[in-house]
Amino acid sequence: MAILVVGSVALDSVATPFGKAQDALGGSATYFSTAASFFTDVRLVAVVGEDFPQAHVDFLQSRRVDLRGLQRVKGRTFRWAGEYGFDLNQAHTLDTQLNVFAQFRPQIPDAYRDSEVVFLANIDPDLQREVLLQVRAPRLVAADTMNFWIEGKREALLKTLKQVEVLIINDAETRQLAQDANLVRAARTISAWGPHTLVIKRGEYGALCYRHGAWFSAPALPMDGVLDPTGAGDCFAGGFLGYLANTLNFSDENIRRAVVMGSVMASFNVEAFSLDRLRTLAYPEIAERYGAFRRLTHFDALD
Amino acid sequence: MAILVVGSVALDSVATPFGKAQDALGGSATYFSTAASFFTDVRLVAVVGEDFPQAHVDFLQSRRVDLRGLQRVKGRTFRWAGEYGFDLNQAHTLDTQLNVFAQFRPQIPDAYRDSEVVFLANIDPDLQREVLLQVRAPRLVAADTMNFWIEGKREALLKTLKQVEVLIINDAETRQLAQDANLVRAARTISAWGPHTLVIKRGEYGALCYRHGAWFSAPALPMDGVLDPTGAGDCFAGGFLGYLANTLNFSDENIRRAVVMGSVMASFNVEAFSLDRLRTLAYPEIAERYGAFRRLTHFDALD
Repeated sequence: MAILVVGSVALDSVATPFGKAQDALGGSATYFSTAASFFTDVRLVAVVGEDFPQAHVDFLQSRRVDLRGLQRVKGRTFRWAGEYGFDLNQAHTLDTQLNVFAQFRPQIPDAYRDSEVVFLANIDPDLQREVLLQVRAPRLVAADTMNFWIEGKREALLKTLKQVEVLIINDAETRQLAQDANLVRAARTISAWGPHTLVIKRGEYGALCYRHGAWFSAPALPMDGVLDPTGAGDCFAGGFLGYLANTLNFSDENIRRAVVMGSVMASFNVEAFSLDRLRTLAYPEIAERYGAFRRLTHFDALD
Repeated sequence: MAILVVGSVALDSVATPFGKAQDALGGSATYFSTAASFFTDVRLVAVVGEDFPQAHVDFLQSRRVDLRGLQRVKGRTFRWAGEYGFDLNQAHTLDTQLNVFAQFRPQIPDAYRDSEVVFLANIDPDLQREVLLQVRAPRLVAADTMNFWIEGKREALLKTLKQVEVLIINDAETRQLAQDANLVRAARTISAWGPHTLVIKRGEYGALCYRHGAWFSAPALPMDGVLDPTGAGDCFAGGFLGYLANTLNFSDENIRRAVVMGSVMASFNVEAFSLDRLRTLAYPEIAERYGAFRRLTHFDALD
C-alpha cells in the first residue's frame, strides 16, 4: 500500500560537536520518504526551487520515491541552519529561509488520490486539511505538528486533528497542545479531540504510544555514535507508517511493532549527517536492529 | 537473605504543586528499607536525634526492619526541606540541616556482620568503605552516590567503587562521574573502575542497566497521579536489591526482573507524600504492577 506524504524538502546546514554539513539534503518529507521507502512505495508532495541539485532528485528516485508531486518553482529551496550542543536533544535554529516553501500549496496529483495511508508532515494545519480534501478515502491519516502551529494556529490545528487518526509529536508538543504538564492527562485530552492513537517521541528516551486508553513504551537504543539528530523524528514517522502500510495490519500488536520500527529507523539516521546513513542501509540491518530492540527490553514474568 | 543498608534517616519537609508534608519520615535508608522489606529482612544502620518520633520507629519495626543499628544520639535529627515545580524530575533544596548526621560514623552491630547483600546509600564514600571493613564476606555490594561526593571527594569515591559490584545512580551523576556527556561511553568508563553492573535511574523515563557490556532498558509507568517524587530513587534501590536478596539469583535474567521491581516500587512511592503509599501497600499489588510493566513494554518479533 503506497503512502502519500506532504511536507518539506530542504537544504540543511547543521553543526554538531561531531562535525557539520553544508546545504545537505533535508526536510520532513525527505527524511520521512527515505525511511518509509525501505518498507513500501512512497508518493511525495513538496516544493523545491531552481537551485535544488539534481543529485538529490536522483537519490530519491533511487529509493523508488514517486516524485510526480514534487513541484519545482522559481526561486530558492527552503533552507534551515541549526546547531546542537552536547545535549543532542535540543536543536538551536540559526537561520530559517522559507523561500519557495512560504507559498507552498499542496497539489495532489491524480495518480496519488487513491492513497490509503497519508502522512501530513509538519506544515500549516490549514494546508494539512487541504491535502485531505484532495484524497479519496484513506484508511489511515497520520500527522505531525510543532510549537509554531500550536501557538499560532491553534483553532486550525484542532480542526485538522478531528480528521487525524494517528498524531506523531514529541513530548513537549504533547504538553503544550493539551496545556497540561502531565503527559498521561495530556494524551487523554488530545485523544478526545480526534486521534485514537498518539505516538509521543522522546528523543534519547524512546517513544510512548497511547492508543484506546492503553500505553506502550518503546525504548531508544543506547548509542555512543550519534553524529546528527536532525530528521530523527521524521525517520521515526517513516519507519512507523512504512511498516504499517506494508503489513496492512492496524491491530494493537502491529502498531507496537511499528513504533519499534520507527525507533529503529531513527536510530540509524542519527549515526550520520543528513540522510547519509540511510543511503547505505540495507533491510537485513533493519531486521537485525529490531531484534536488538527486543533484547534491549525483554524481561521475564515473575516465577 | 538479609540486606544491610547504611544511610540516612531524616525528617523531610516537602512541597509539590499537589500538596506538602512537614517533618515527615524520610531519608535514604528509610525509603530503601521500607521498599526492600516487602521482599526480605532488612538491617538498618543510621543515626537519629532525640527528637525522632517513636511513631516512626514503630513503623519501621512493623515492616520487620532490624533497628539494632539505629543509633540515637544527643541533638536533632537530619532535616531536609525541598520543593518541586511541575517538572517533578528536579528537586529544589530549600534547607539542609545535617544535625546528628554530620558526625555519623557507621557502627555495624555484630549481628549484622554476616550480611550477604549490602547497600551503601548516599553517604560519604570514606564512610562507605568503613562499612565494608566491618562486614565479613558479602556476596553483593551495591552503592549510591551523588554530585556532592563526585565533585568533592572524587578520589575517595573511586576507591570505594573498586569494592562495589552494582552502582545505582541517576543519569546526570553517571555523566558527571565519567566526565562524558554520552551515557554509553560513561557507563563503559565507570564499569572499568569496578562495578560490573550499573543501574542508571532516569526518573519519569525509567531506568537503564549496563552489565557485562549489554544494556537493558526498563520503562517508567506513565502516571497521572504523581504527588511527591521524594525517595523514588531509594525505593527503586530497595525494590531492586530486595528482590535480588529474596531470590538469591544474580543471573542476567533475574537482574532484569530486579530492575523492573525497582521501577515498580518507585512507581508506588511517588503516589503519596513521604512513605505513605508504602504504608498501605500489599504484595499482590506489587505483583500486579509488575504485570502492568510487562504489558507496557511487550512487543512481538517480526513475522
